[in-house]
Amino acid sequence: MVTKEYLDAKERALAKLKTASVHHKVDEGILPVLEMLNKMEGVYTTSSCAGRIVLLQIPRLGDKREALFLGIWHRLITPAELSSAAKKATEGMLWLLAQAPILHIGAENPEIANSLVKLAVSSGFKNSAIKTIGKKTMIELSSTERLDAPIGRNGCLFCEGDYLHLLTEIANEVIERSQQKLIRLERNLKNIGLGL
Amino acid sequence: MVTKEYLDAKERALAKLKTASVHHKVDEGILPVLEMLNKMEGVYTTSSCAGRIVLLQIPRLGDKREALFLGIWHRLITPAELSSAAKKATEGMLWLLAQAPILHIGAENPEIANSLVKLAVSSGFKNSAIKTIGKKTMIELSSTERLDAPIGRNGCLFCEGDYLHLLTEIANEVIERSQQKLIRLERNLKNIGLGL
Repeated sequence: MVTKEYLDAKERALAKLKTASVHHKVDEGILPVLEMLNKMEGVYTTSSCAGRIVLLQIPRLGDKREALFLGIWHRLITPAELSSAAKKATEGMLWLLAQAPILHIGAENPEIANSLVKLAVSSGFKNSAIKTIGKKTMIELSSTERLDAPIGRNGCLFCEGDYLHLLTEIANEVIERSQQKLIRLERNLKNIGLGL
Repeated sequence: MVTKEYLDAKERALAKLKTASVHHKVDEGILPVLEMLNKMEGVYTTSSCAGRIVLLQIPRLGDKREALFLGIWHRLITPAELSSAAKKATEGMLWLLAQAPILHIGAENPEIANSLVKLAVSSGFKNSAIKTIGKKTMIELSSTERLDAPIGRNGCLFCEGDYLHLLTEIANEVIERSQQKLIRLERNLKNIGLGL
């Protein structure tokens, strides 16, 4: 049985997505998948990221809460862009991260959640799982590609030249694979129609 | 109701753990937690890692299946150990990984799985979730600390000296935090007794 709590939560999530979308606060690359999921019975999306490359400055080792974002890109980058963003660095550790897409999704019940996780895993989102069941059932879809590398300290990169090119290449590969996986998920969702 | 499938699966898992333990194939640091979980009603462990530092050689970008392990440590390491393991490198990319503990656990039903995931999250294993429900209900407990860094190519490290010290420091921090979190999980499991 569909509960009122579930229907209210889906309504709120859709309204929030609409507002965010109007203000261009949703990653464009992920919009087709979000729209498809929200049209389905039994699930709704709550927050998501299409995959990104991030240059972070962290004051002390392990202190990611105090992190300063020197660059965020939801697309492929060039070594020059990375180098230019790194010029804003002052004190602390410089980390380059590349992150695969992540989607948070509410589900009507654990069975529907389980079906969507299965479909996501078979679409390449190997790190997908049910985060919680009970009053609310929430899913996280995500993939395993990533880069988490310390690349400089106190305003200086450890290495330049070839190394910067290679880091850019690796980070871009995460983004490219992310895009391919989102397309695969979209296709697989289309194939099953509106019900899980 | 406890099913025969669940009881059989738990029996098989315990027998397998016993054999692995006799042959010293289980990470010592994680044994107390495994023993505690397996004594509980409704859950059993299937595979686990206490957290580790790995030096990998990968022939081509993204080709992790063909990876060659040049070093695996389930403990703190020194820059000299890292440098010495890197000397075995020949052709391809060198990656240094540090991975937090990971535990795979079978559960009697989704509700028990959900309770254990909650307890794990509150013990610092923020990346824990239910991987599948249905015929078998499986959980993965894991944490978020990690290092995934390309550090060399074709037998050479990109940088030496300070950089190697820093990489070692960061990798060791992942291991230290892993150990602390396992102790916290052990304490929290002890507090709730034998039932979830």
